[in-house]
Amino acid sequence: MANKTAPDKRKTVGHRLAIIDGHLRKVRRMVEEGAYCVDIIHQSQAIQSALKNFDEEMLRQHLRVCVARDMQAGKSDTVTKELIDIYKRL
Amino acid sequence: MANKTAPDKRKTVGHRLAIIDGHLRKVRRMVEEGAYCVDIIHQSQAIQSALKNFDEEMLRQHLRVCVARDMQAGKSDTVTKELIDIYKRL
Amino acid sequence: MANKTAPDKRKTVGHRLAIIDGHLRKVRRMVEEGAYCVDIIHQSQAIQSALKNFDEEMLRQHLRVCVARDMQAGKSDTVTKELIDIYKRL
Amino acid sequence: MANKTAPDKRKTVGHRLAIIDGHLRKVRRMVEEGAYCVDIIHQSQAIQSALKNFDEEMLRQHLRVCVARDMQAGKSDTVTKELIDIYKRL
Repeated sequence: MANKTAPDKRKTVGHRLAIIDGHLRKVRRMVEEGAYCVDIIHQSQAIQSALKNFDEEMLRQHLRVCVARDMQAGKSDTVTKELIDIYKRL
Repeated sequence: MANKTAPDKRKTVGHRLAIIDGHLRKVRRMVEEGAYCVDIIHQSQAIQSALKNFDEEMLRQHLRVCVARDMQAGKSDTVTKELIDIYKRL
Repeated sequence: MANKTAPDKRKTVGHRLAIIDGHLRKVRRMVEEGAYCVDIIHQSQAIQSALKNFDEEMLRQHLRVCVARDMQAGKSDTVTKELIDIYKRL
Repeated sequence: MANKTAPDKRKTVGHRLAIIDGHLRKVRRMVEEGAYCVDIIHQSQAIQSALKNFDEEMLRQHLRVCVARDMQAGKSDTVTKELIDIYKRL
């Protein structure tokens, strides 16, 4: 339970995801309507950018809460592995 | 009309986007259920990766069809500007 | 020979690389002197950013000159493969 | 002093940087000799990749040593700010 997303954060990030979902629906419509490839790519890149900002918000919360607590509990190996794993996928 | 996504490609890329949409719905559910931040970030990074692959497919088609035609029509400045713009947003 | 970097461009991009080289020497010195890890990472990230800008300049020239010429010669498959290859490594 | 790069790590990462320096010198030579743009871009992308791996190594050490210590000292705000800053520049 201690690892769960804080309830007060859920609403904010949930709202961000709803907006991203709307943008994704727009890309699907653009493809169906045969829009210009470059416009479709721009829209898709904007979604990736929004997801990266979403990740930043999740990461900030993770560092402040979970990492702080786990480092204090001496779990530096697990924490380091998890954070490096996120870094490598970037 | 010449700039539109080829109909035969629309179905394939449309299918990709439907899968990405499913993954995004999963992220939204994870946030609502208060899943572990690191798992949420991994899922979001997977979506960004899938969108990058989608862009690659769109770009490939764009190069083969639109860029080839526009370069032959002498529009190298416009083409260059558009492609550099995609590169810069990466 | 037609594929070679234009001589007028060589000086400009060569100058950029000399600056990047200076920054890399600075990172090496920071490591030797045992500087703070975060400061070293920032400096390394700045070099990556400078190299990405250098690539953008090279790509711009490549599109205007080589891609324009090769597309006009009907080599759209080779050109597409080369550009997608650059995109995938990003 | 507590924030300094550990001496035992300095040699390893210093060696990595020496190799990267060699690759950068190769790019400079390629530009001077007017090599094919695409080959130059590939070489530059390889350097960026090597620098990202170098950062990963630095970050791993930073997490294990400095972040663990600073989180235990209750400095979660400073640590979070520094790590988010690295993330944003990616």
